[in-house]
Amino acid sequence: MSIQNTKGNLTIGLFGFGIVGESLFNVLNEKPTFGARVKRICIKDAEKPRSAPSSLFTTDPDELLNDKEIDVIVELISDSEAAYRFVSTALHRGKPVVSASKKMIAENLDALIALQKQTGTSFLYEAGCCASIPVLRNLEEYYDNDLLQRLSGVVNGSTNYILTRQAKDGYKFEQALSDAQEAGFAEADPSLDLEGVDAANKLVLLLVHAYGIVAHPAQLLYSGITGIHDADIKLAREKGYEVKLIAHALKTGGGDVAAFVLPQFVERQSRLAGVAYEYNGLEIESSLADVQFLCGKGAGGYPTASAVLSDLSALRYNYRYEYKKLTNAPSRLCDDYYLHVCVGARSLLHIPQEHFEQVEEWVSSERRCYLSGTIHVNKLLGTDWWRKPGVSLILYPDPISHEVVTSDLHEYAGI
Amino acid sequence: MSIQNTKGNLTIGLFGFGIVGESLFNVLNEKPTFGARVKRICIKDAEKPRSAPSSLFTTDPDELLNDKEIDVIVELISDSEAAYRFVSTALHRGKPVVSASKKMIAENLDALIALQKQTGTSFLYEAGCCASIPVLRNLEEYYDNDLLQRLSGVVNGSTNYILTRQAKDGYKFEQALSDAQEAGFAEADPSLDLEGVDAANKLVLLLVHAYGIVAHPAQLLYSGITGIHDADIKLAREKGYEVKLIAHALKTGGGDVAAFVLPQFVERQSRLAGVAYEYNGLEIESSLADVQFLCGKGAGGYPTASAVLSDLSALRYNYRYEYKKLTNAPSRLCDDYYLHVCVGARSLLHIPQEHFEQVEEWVSSERRCYLSGTIHVNKLLGTDWWRKPGVSLILYPDPISHEVVTSDLHEYAGI
Repeated sequence: MSIQNTKGNLTIGLFGFGIVGESLFNVLNEKPTFGARVKRICIKDAEKPRSAPSSLFTTDPDELLNDKEIDVIVELISDSEAAYRFVSTALHRGKPVVSASKKMIAENLDALIALQKQTGTSFLYEAGCCASIPVLRNLEEYYDNDLLQRLSGVVNGSTNYILTRQAKDGYKFEQALSDAQEAGFAEADPSLDLEGVDAANKLVLLLVHAYGIVAHPAQLLYSGITGIHDADIKLAREKGYEVKLIAHALKTGGGDVAAFVLPQFVERQSRLAGVAYEYNGLEIESSLADVQFLCGKGAGGYPTASAVLSDLSALRYNYRYEYKKLTNAPSRLCDDYYLHVCVGARSLLHIPQEHFEQVEEWVSSERRCYLSGTIHVNKLLGTDWWRKPGVSLILYPDPISHEVVTSDLHEYAGI
Repeated sequence: MSIQNTKGNLTIGLFGFGIVGESLFNVLNEKPTFGARVKRICIKDAEKPRSAPSSLFTTDPDELLNDKEIDVIVELISDSEAAYRFVSTALHRGKPVVSASKKMIAENLDALIALQKQTGTSFLYEAGCCASIPVLRNLEEYYDNDLLQRLSGVVNGSTNYILTRQAKDGYKFEQALSDAQEAGFAEADPSLDLEGVDAANKLVLLLVHAYGIVAHPAQLLYSGITGIHDADIKLAREKGYEVKLIAHALKTGGGDVAAFVLPQFVERQSRLAGVAYEYNGLEIESSLADVQFLCGKGAGGYPTASAVLSDLSALRYNYRYEYKKLTNAPSRLCDDYYLHVCVGARSLLHIPQEHFEQVEEWVSSERRCYLSGTIHVNKLLGTDWWRKPGVSLILYPDPISHEVVTSDLHEYAGI
């Protein structure tokens, strides 16, 4: 089914009434000129008090999915499995869906793309990546795979808020986290954000629209900020850097794409260092246009609702992701490259130096030890020492290389 | 005619072989996977040596416009009147057109919109505003008029290059201009850029896609950087500002839009101050998403060609600007507001103080005199003293207000 009444009102069935759902509901009520109304809202907990008329709410998904008057499903719930069920049922029934559930989408991307092909029904999820910043349709429409050299971005607002509070305002980690939670930028259970899972999920969405790569988040190299020590942030400042959690998708010499999410030292004057608090920012490098930069709020109810709204607008003219790059010469993930890292730990004994191709420097103090060097990606993908509590692994500004000149190795590293 | 063979090759008729035309030609040759070839190139001067096979060139526009095999016209010439003739002929003949001629488009916007409606043929011009930055389709697709509060941006690469050279590298104006010309960021006749006409033309394009306002550049308040004195740039630095030429489209309290292009003091730490050299940058403020920022190269052959390329991609799926905001509750231009300005001149006698609603400060030195105050927009639109040689008019960071508390006027200003 396509939405026939492109000029008329949209009738929405809404799953979820959390901060984004409620923001969307408020906006649609305040802006009747937008021409969309929420007819029914499916929630999990009927007992929770809600700021909308109780007659709108139901706990029965079928009351939305079977309602012929509802011509769009907006899915904004946190339970990924339930979200996938509702979304796939809606698509099967020919109801276009707008979703913000990046975890659900990233983990089921293959199946969801197949479902869109099979049903011919639109499934849009601009809010799933960088909230308010128009990223996915831009990558789909503006940037030829062939010419796209690099994406690098701050894509998780919660961790960026925490890191900014630590670096700019001198907060300790725990203090910064609880502040982020109070401000509504971190979940009650913040582990998906803190451990980099959320950023990895967003990288999956970027990869398919930028390069036509369908990856599962578990395939990607990622970590979050739980290992970052206050001393690491101090060290960064001393060196003229900021620590940021950066998602990268870098075209390698052979045309494959190295994709990873890791904390990174970025130059204090750089664009990404300037992305502060709950903001997200994405650098897009193409061989023609050089570096472009998109920046905006990456968390919060209204910024996320604004992306949902732009998807609803796109549905009025039956917009669908074409996944152009997937059908037209997609790139492949690269698993053969070296990372230039600084590893921090309580003792050098916690850092397996034999895994490194090259060690440039080690510094040992009572407080914290650091090893700087070059390591092959597979030495990280196959191990978990660098994910252990108290260990931080932070990329240098120029994070990857494709070759290590092994003959110079021992001399250079002094091994 | 729409392009039927969406997967097949595009056959292009190219008008113009300047820096952008040549860049586009090179890219299409180097990237056969893009699936477009230039069949014929119409130029004005047959004697000029060209870096492409001479068999491609003609001076007869009809050889392109009458060629049934050519399914897209790309128009990249500097002569606006000729450009308008070629574009309108092509649209009448059902050939979609991609153009970068902002002057021609801004001056004929009304007629070109009518022509698109009448013929049903696509006319795309992403390269006409901010070169490589995806702006126009984003404004058309992502940002609801109702929610869009403000656009403010550096939209002219040449003047920004010159101002950056003056502020960062200590160049004098003449030296900065000739450097910009050598680097290919300013025309041999740079007057359109220097006098703000080019930026005003781009503001016209922004206004129609952001707010549904069809304006003629001559209606807008604008100036360039020819009046900016080295002392003004020094003054800005002393106050912690940079001088930038900024295009604004600001929603006023009543919902109308104040639109103008003027030099402005911007805080040194602000996003727009960070837009350096030939870069352009646009802040987009919406009531939901808050401030977003798009930045990228705003001049140069390849960056501009990349926008042309993205329009060619969009033509593959028959994309057309819908001018949604024009049909759906367009905004109107506002002509009742006050500007907060700093005027510099050789003598205070060159500044008609009686035009000001409020004078906050005047400073007189041997080198240059300054008057800071508030002036109604109509006092500028109706006069030209502020455009005279040696006079600079620079906006303060918070440039407009809608009311002046007149009762306090004389007291406050000390008049």
